[in-house]
Amino acid sequence: ARPKVGYFYSGKSSVNIFAQEVKNMKVRDIMSIPIIVTEESSVYDGVVTLFLEDVGTIFVVSKGSLTGIVSRKDFLKSAMGGVDMNKVPVGMIMTRSPNIATVSPEDNALEAAIKIMDHEVDSLPVVEKIKENGQDIVKVIGRISKSNITKLFVELCKE
Amino acid sequence: ARPKVGYFYSGKSSVNIFAQEVKNMKVRDIMSIPIIVTEESSVYDGVVTLFLEDVGTIFVVSKGSLTGIVSRKDFLKSAMGGVDMNKVPVGMIMTRSPNIATVSPEDNALEAAIKIMDHEVDSLPVVEKIKENGQDIVKVIGRISKSNITKLFVELCKE
Repeated sequence: ARPKVGYFYSGKSSVNIFAQEVKNMKVRDIMSIPIIVTEESSVYDGVVTLFLEDVGTIFVVSKGSLTGIVSRKDFLKSAMGGVDMNKVPVGMIMTRSPNIATVSPEDNALEAAIKIMDHEVDSLPVVEKIKENGQDIVKVIGRISKSNITKLFVELCKE
Repeated sequence: ARPKVGYFYSGKSSVNIFAQEVKNMKVRDIMSIPIIVTEESSVYDGVVTLFLEDVGTIFVVSKGSLTGIVSRKDFLKSAMGGVDMNKVPVGMIMTRSPNIATVSPEDNALEAAIKIMDHEVDSLPVVEKIKENGQDIVKVIGRISKSNITKLFVELCKE
């Protein structure tokens, strides 16, 4: 008798079929809005931004191009180190490019999750490399974090 | 055990089959070691522990029972607020029970992920409620975070 609902061939395990679905899911589909400050912003303003936006990491730009990342950990370290928060600029305490990992909006969610784990960070800037007036610009267009991945995990399991 | 090859019945979507697998995965299977301090520890010692262990959240106990949680965010807030870190105890700045979410080692990973998202926290203490000398003790036996969920997500997709 014909089955009422289909059988399908599983040369791959069910989990691999899931992996296929995940691979079709792009960073662009699950990313959040990036929170950005300029290099000249004070550490104090950086911390205030962090709290107001309730994020764990903010991205730092100079002339519209990504130059660094600052996390709660960096801010806590500088607070402990007795840094003068109103005088020192964020640019002094950030992790500076090229020592930062980024993803493209067209990368898949799994690649982003792997990068987050490998680099032991909470979130990554989503960037587009463009030319503007003959200058190479790394434009920050999003943020992808462990929260986005956890949310995706929950949504895929609930479906 | 799931068949590696063969046919299987797909009344449910492939994603739901994945969800079934996830539901069989317990907090116990993916949790990390908890980092614990006592309520009397100074805020300074708390921050040092946070950095040494490289975690985002530490759990606070009194007489062996969980009483609170402190995160990087709490420490940063108290540093900004000019708290005397060597004098003020962690118990003063922590989020105190019952305002904290916990999970049991026998809960499944998906429930833990949902709780992490719902409570907007980075990690949850994994606890066992026991009796010790006639006292109710909430014993912390693990820690489950967005990192554990992200790692699980990656592993399931890579399999």
